[in-house]
Amino acid sequence: MSDNSLEKNQRPSFGRFDPPRRILLGPGPSPVDDRVLNAMTAPVLGHLDPIFLQCMDDIQSMLRYVFETENRVTFPVSGTGSAGMEAAIVNSIEPGDDVVVCVIGVFGERMVEIVERAGGRPVTVRSEWGEPVDPNRIEDALKSCKARALVLVHAETSTGVLQKLDGLADLAHSRDALLVVDAVASLGGIPVGVDRNHIDVCYSGSQKCLSAPPGLAPITFSERAVSRLRSRKTKVQSWYLDASMVEKYWGAERTYHHTAPISSNYALREALRLVCEDGLQARWQRHELNHQALVAGLEAMGIQMLVAPENRANCVNAVCVPDGVDDALVRSRLLEKTSIDIAGGLGRLKGRIWRIGLMGSGSTRENVLLLIQGLHEAIAEQGHQLPNGFQAAEAIYEAHSAVTA
Amino acid sequence: MSDNSLEKNQRPSFGRFDPPRRILLGPGPSPVDDRVLNAMTAPVLGHLDPIFLQCMDDIQSMLRYVFETENRVTFPVSGTGSAGMEAAIVNSIEPGDDVVVCVIGVFGERMVEIVERAGGRPVTVRSEWGEPVDPNRIEDALKSCKARALVLVHAETSTGVLQKLDGLADLAHSRDALLVVDAVASLGGIPVGVDRNHIDVCYSGSQKCLSAPPGLAPITFSERAVSRLRSRKTKVQSWYLDASMVEKYWGAERTYHHTAPISSNYALREALRLVCEDGLQARWQRHELNHQALVAGLEAMGIQMLVAPENRANCVNAVCVPDGVDDALVRSRLLEKTSIDIAGGLGRLKGRIWRIGLMGSGSTRENVLLLIQGLHEAIAEQGHQLPNGFQAAEAIYEAHSAVTA
Repeated sequence: MSDNSLEKNQRPSFGRFDPPRRILLGPGPSPVDDRVLNAMTAPVLGHLDPIFLQCMDDIQSMLRYVFETENRVTFPVSGTGSAGMEAAIVNSIEPGDDVVVCVIGVFGERMVEIVERAGGRPVTVRSEWGEPVDPNRIEDALKSCKARALVLVHAETSTGVLQKLDGLADLAHSRDALLVVDAVASLGGIPVGVDRNHIDVCYSGSQKCLSAPPGLAPITFSERAVSRLRSRKTKVQSWYLDASMVEKYWGAERTYHHTAPISSNYALREALRLVCEDGLQARWQRHELNHQALVAGLEAMGIQMLVAPENRANCVNAVCVPDGVDDALVRSRLLEKTSIDIAGGLGRLKGRIWRIGLMGSGSTRENVLLLIQGLHEAIAEQGHQLPNGFQAAEAIYEAHSAVTA
Repeated sequence: MSDNSLEKNQRPSFGRFDPPRRILLGPGPSPVDDRVLNAMTAPVLGHLDPIFLQCMDDIQSMLRYVFETENRVTFPVSGTGSAGMEAAIVNSIEPGDDVVVCVIGVFGERMVEIVERAGGRPVTVRSEWGEPVDPNRIEDALKSCKARALVLVHAETSTGVLQKLDGLADLAHSRDALLVVDAVASLGGIPVGVDRNHIDVCYSGSQKCLSAPPGLAPITFSERAVSRLRSRKTKVQSWYLDASMVEKYWGAERTYHHTAPISSNYALREALRLVCEDGLQARWQRHELNHQALVAGLEAMGIQMLVAPENRANCVNAVCVPDGVDDALVRSRLLEKTSIDIAGGLGRLKGRIWRIGLMGSGSTRENVLLLIQGLHEAIAEQGHQLPNGFQAAEAIYEAHSAVTA
């Protein structure tokens, strides 16, 4: 081996990476508590070490609590939220299956794409962006085909819309279709209620309202979904995401499938501990309160929300960029001056909205007030003098304190 | 929302997770340096934050060094090594393609499985377990079909066999097949030489000789592989692993695809810095030296290696369990008494071999000597008095010092 040229000339030499601390108020990743970051400094164990197996059991137990389910098959997929989406779909459908897909934004479109790549035939029900899909149209779509699954996004981070889950399981199950729900943005911030809502496959991401680093996608399968999986005629097209195999590692068999991302699971365990310490109800209430304060502040500034009040996902706020204001410039000034990171619009909403996430550890009174102040200043810099929304936001917190005192 | 029963009775309450420090000498994950663990405590950035984009560039630059390639399309897949395997295969073949698969152990069998699930037609070339495949048989297989790809494992962790890469690209390319190489266990420990060996698609795992935590799978695509990808008739079946989309996030376009696992990438960056500080050649030599010392020690104890010397992958040692010795008991005693974690055999080698990994940060003189001592004691506990291999291992290090002094 004589590649000295490689050794001498091409060996890269980078310094230590020392990123600044941002206040992550985009649509994810959300801010990660230091307890969660520090959990990753624990020594790496082997993926079959009895002590790691205990860590897995703890994670599953806490995931069942957060999903509000007793589903046995509940585990984190070893990939990001999009891997969770792909896992949910490829484990639910077979080539040739009709699949009703509700599309209320970019992530619904992604579902259509994945259904097609899995050989399914998507029957789409699309809303105007900024609105949910009318359940009557879902029923019509289910009746128009032999749907094997109804798949939809609960809280669509591209539009800030919440698709309500009430009654959808009845619609799906009456046609023998599985109900598959993307709870990437909502789980841990907005009630999902897997068992209450009779969801068959539900997945999330570690980096939204659970506030762990991105890289894992919690998923859960009802008995109906498991029995569908067992009676498939074809193998799941993805070996990596095949739940019938992965569940044997997370279940009693402990059969090796792939090496679990050990440190990421340590982080998820600690993030779930924080959720359990909060309690789900308190966490949901916190997300709703901070959302209300944000909206009050923005509206007092004369800034409009994209979505009607009854359809808003409180963890992702789609905020209309005021006329004449430079979307990207406001975002970059916010980041420079206040370290607050918010996002622009995706797809057809690019340049038209800001996406402000109040998720998990990021959903705090302090962040809401900082953001309203920062946004006001960044817009003022562009010569637009809006009213200050600070007091309107404060008033929401004061009213809440009065009620709960 | 009135699920007080859930709140009061079912809210889990777990303590802090505090795992012990193991000496990971199995086939991966390998020991992770504290510098790498601490890198994960850096604040999480957004996946489009300019500072994270710089981190991505650094990673790509160091991955090119480690892969020994100038391939533009080089990035870590957001999943473990098995996700890397699936990414390599689904991006290289289309339904109906003939694919020659060399099978020298469990991971070759996994490749067959993934080729089938991707709609390919595997033409398998199998060796006796413990041996590599004869290149003449690979040539025959390529001639027997219209192979679009030749896929194989470089260092097979289930058997400890190294499949040499010399000449394989010529065989593949003369039949217009891509050469796809699994370097999960070898990259960073054994020369892979992507450009020198004209490999078209090569992938690895973060948790072997690179000694980062499991969860990422570095992959690289030659121009030939990229042009194959561009001229596909069908879409890549996995949306999540579609390299034609992921490369637009890692490349100049910076188009959002999925949220990168931020903290895992911080860890990979720091692990790659350690590789660059070592230098590839020094690292390869270290892996070889510690392997030689281990083998000398084991052979002095009268313990046999499964694989002939010329076919051994130095990072994963397949060690025959001596007659009458209880495989599992030795492993559990080693873990209890010395914190050393080694693995048993997989598949048909279960109970017949131990798998001893000397990978990345784990490949040290101290670990080799600890292991030989510990193995000797654990076997003695079962009433088998073997000679001590300590001095034979020491002798290898002394001879090496004499040469390099």
